[in-house]
Amino acid sequence: MKLPDPESLYARLKEQIEHAFPNRSELGLIGVHSGGAWIAERLHHDLGFTLPCGFLDSALYRDDFSERGMKTAPKPADMPFDVAGRQILLVDDVLYTGRTVRAIVNHLFDYGRPAKIELAVLLDRGGRELPIDAQYVGKHEPLKPNQSFVLTRDEQGAFRLGLEEKQGE
Amino acid sequence: MKLPDPESLYARLKEQIEHAFPNRSELGLIGVHSGGAWIAERLHHDLGFTLPCGFLDSALYRDDFSERGMKTAPKPADMPFDVAGRQILLVDDVLYTGRTVRAIVNHLFDYGRPAKIELAVLLDRGGRELPIDAQYVGKHEPLKPNQSFVLTRDEQGAFRLGLEEKQGE
Repeated sequence: MKLPDPESLYARLKEQIEHAFPNRSELGLIGVHSGGAWIAERLHHDLGFTLPCGFLDSALYRDDFSERGMKTAPKPADMPFDVAGRQILLVDDVLYTGRTVRAIVNHLFDYGRPAKIELAVLLDRGGRELPIDAQYVGKHEPLKPNQSFVLTRDEQGAFRLGLEEKQGE
Repeated sequence: MKLPDPESLYARLKEQIEHAFPNRSELGLIGVHSGGAWIAERLHHDLGFTLPCGFLDSALYRDDFSERGMKTAPKPADMPFDVAGRQILLVDDVLYTGRTVRAIVNHLFDYGRPAKIELAVLLDRGGRELPIDAQYVGKHEPLKPNQSFVLTRDEQGAFRLGLEEKQGE
């Protein structure tokens, strides 16, 4: 399969968010480690949000933690604004089962009860296992269960997209 | 506004579910009290599910419990099948902010980790405050914030739909 160009996806996502939130002075932007955090950081820089960017890691909160375990050490959460009563834009790189999003939303509620949480993702690969959906999507690109997108950054900070295929599944 | 006929919406929803789940022998059907429970009961009867129907009440689990309080006494949960590893179809009457769905999904995980949870609703009235969506929808019918749909049943068990409008909001 020909992989989509992640820089084009990012440009499309940025445009959607710019259009949906003409006033970004009170909007709380939160990136999910690691890919979502990179995207949130770039959105924060490119679109000029007033509040600093927040970061969350889902690793410790997913319902399948006991099966997946820790692939990498969880990164510290950073919530530099009040969540209670605030409109929140959550950013992740790839939307798949929805389990990460459920975990992150539950985690967010530990900080306070937001007025609204919306979700922006670079890629929706389908395969949802929970009734969760994103409001802003760079591209819908269905993958097989044994495949996964891998987002990385080059030395200049530009996004690169790879495809991982597990054998024997 | 002209209200949609809830019996036509039900017929449309039933058809979607019949088509999406040709094999209903292992599917766990769960209705959310009260309206969702009525719809789930009818689906269970009309489509011939093998497992008994489950029921949940969101009142105690919503994140705005302290603001809303108890309008009516919560109905007891009834989960007559194993949730762990199972495909679940959650049924509610109206999808609005998504807060009820989040509460119900979290509550479901107290029983075990389902393989998949999908959501069916008679009406999606828009106004989401969480990144939640339904897979099966009788109709999308946006309402104003001061309006709400009220589903009732007549003596024969047929659905009736009303519109409630709060003044001064």
